[in-house]
Amino acid sequence: MKINGIHYRSVWLAGDGYTVEIFDQTKLPFELQIIQLSTMQDAATAIKEMWVRGAPLIGAVAAYGIALAMRQDSSTENLQLAHDTLVKTRPTAINLKWALDRSYQVLQNTCPPQRKETAYRIANEIADEDVELCRKIGENGLKIIQGVAANKPAGEVVNILTHCNAGWLATVDWGTALSPIYMAHDAGIKVHVWVDETRPRNQGGLTAFELGSHGVPHTLVADNAGGHLMQHGKVDLCIVGTDRTTARGDVCNKIGTYLKALAAKANQVPFYVALPSPTLDFTVWDGVKEIPIEQRSGEEQSHVYGLTSEGKHNWVNTVPQGTRCGNYAFDVTPAEFVTGLITERGLCDASAEGLRSLFPDLYQQYS
Amino acid sequence: MKINGIHYRSVWLAGDGYTVEIFDQTKLPFELQIIQLSTMQDAATAIKEMWVRGAPLIGAVAAYGIALAMRQDSSTENLQLAHDTLVKTRPTAINLKWALDRSYQVLQNTCPPQRKETAYRIANEIADEDVELCRKIGENGLKIIQGVAANKPAGEVVNILTHCNAGWLATVDWGTALSPIYMAHDAGIKVHVWVDETRPRNQGGLTAFELGSHGVPHTLVADNAGGHLMQHGKVDLCIVGTDRTTARGDVCNKIGTYLKALAAKANQVPFYVALPSPTLDFTVWDGVKEIPIEQRSGEEQSHVYGLTSEGKHNWVNTVPQGTRCGNYAFDVTPAEFVTGLITERGLCDASAEGLRSLFPDLYQQYS
Repeated sequence: MKINGIHYRSVWLAGDGYTVEIFDQTKLPFELQIIQLSTMQDAATAIKEMWVRGAPLIGAVAAYGIALAMRQDSSTENLQLAHDTLVKTRPTAINLKWALDRSYQVLQNTCPPQRKETAYRIANEIADEDVELCRKIGENGLKIIQGVAANKPAGEVVNILTHCNAGWLATVDWGTALSPIYMAHDAGIKVHVWVDETRPRNQGGLTAFELGSHGVPHTLVADNAGGHLMQHGKVDLCIVGTDRTTARGDVCNKIGTYLKALAAKANQVPFYVALPSPTLDFTVWDGVKEIPIEQRSGEEQSHVYGLTSEGKHNWVNTVPQGTRCGNYAFDVTPAEFVTGLITERGLCDASAEGLRSLFPDLYQQYS
Repeated sequence: MKINGIHYRSVWLAGDGYTVEIFDQTKLPFELQIIQLSTMQDAATAIKEMWVRGAPLIGAVAAYGIALAMRQDSSTENLQLAHDTLVKTRPTAINLKWALDRSYQVLQNTCPPQRKETAYRIANEIADEDVELCRKIGENGLKIIQGVAANKPAGEVVNILTHCNAGWLATVDWGTALSPIYMAHDAGIKVHVWVDETRPRNQGGLTAFELGSHGVPHTLVADNAGGHLMQHGKVDLCIVGTDRTTARGDVCNKIGTYLKALAAKANQVPFYVALPSPTLDFTVWDGVKEIPIEQRSGEEQSHVYGLTSEGKHNWVNTVPQGTRCGNYAFDVTPAEFVTGLITERGLCDASAEGLRSLFPDLYQQYS
């Protein structure tokens, strides 16, 4: 999407056609810094140090990491080394391993002199495929926003609430939950986004950065505000992303998503989840009972990062010394609170029937 | 309640019997600093600069402000000046005017030589009455916690979730929502409190400070976490305070209260509101429709206060430059989501019938 009128992806090739460029996302949303990755080790560092984040983007950068390795030394030893180095950078990222395995399997059956070109081709494919997947989610979600706009007096703003950051910075372009919003904005529909701050890690700042850079009107609010906003008709629909969706349509997403879904249901506000099929997990049925929720460091709750009045980046401790802080990273929204799932293949109900109708091929593997 | 084993009120007389002492609450929860108020002007500054906060405490400090004025100069002119100066310090605080009028009305009919003693007596009465009111709320709420504890295996911890700070620092002692919790803890019931951070102003830090100082086990969590905690049986009951309760039992309280009430209802967790009768407003029926919700500065949302790693107090801006922030200060929880009201006169349903049964005298005035 755009920053200051210029279109960017979250990973791209520099003018030389080989060097890989990314944003240092640890500096966002306060500073926009482009980093050049010239070696496989650079790519590994970018993933490990979280200069890039979001499963799809990590997968793409890893694939470019293999390409950078093949550019330096296309031997089978170096291919193996690159795969093994990159796969260890973020042990739990599923897309990382998937992208590396895909590249590795092709390259080991490719003559070394052709490996460089092939590796770049595969990395480009992986990036393009993610863009296409997000674009389709956007097109399918756009229909919902168009429908909402059509039911309002002409020219009236459509208010959309989102939680966390499911935008283009976490994918390669478009994003998931934000993709329909960008499409609606680009199509001339007047949209305004309520951006949840998303404590404790404040990913709302990333969403505000994305939307602001692309020119989409938005207001950042405390996570506490959504209930009041919905109660007073200030939200026309909610769209959130997901980390994992179960076979019956329960949605695991950033902590706090469930509270917004409860408020949406109580106030007859449609609550949609943007769902790229790689996040479907048909091995799980009851999300509340079966999905273990990661508990992270209490410091993520107590310490807040930002800019001081002198323009310095700093952390501040917001709680009394010695206070124990809990930090539950995700929660599960039961399917009954989800109006519908927006996938790259279309819309469906948050139910086993809905998912089976759109993804019979995937569903079959687990039944 | 206690700090390091020593019992404090939030306002008290120094050893000389005249000087008024308070904590500078703008320094809390990071620093405990006692301030001496020697003149009426000191008291006015303390209220204006928010060294003291919370309607009951403000009322008590204002009454002591009149006493300090009478100590300096007990003339009718000075009585008038003190009243007029103090009443302007926080224009919307209802207890402030109530306390000042009460003192003023008695003093204007008192001979000047006796005004000093009378003014101190009235201020002490106002403080003592607030302590007594909170103590009764505590006793009535304690029964609920005892009931919950009795239904759990012996010795198992009772988990209570609270939002914002409705503790002794906002009253003179005990607090409202926290009063039953202190009583339960002091009675030997094992309690653990989930303390909502309460964005955007982080009053959860004050609650954590209070509870920690008195020795009550607690964990501070993001406002986003409560839904997940209730879904997983980690909350036995919720107790919150209120700024205003309507004739039919709708509860206006800190923004985010409504989301917790929704989660409590969805997960069969009892949701209680501690309600001192001065916060009843029988002129309002439908809280959602009738109560205007204050919108405060967006800077309270964007800028977060805390301690840097060098031990300095500092503000940091947590959002991208130019981000518009919304800041809704309160929300309304409809009566249907409230299990019961804990008042100084006992428990009642959150309904017109419930309130009428406990407060027939007050109800009659408005019917």
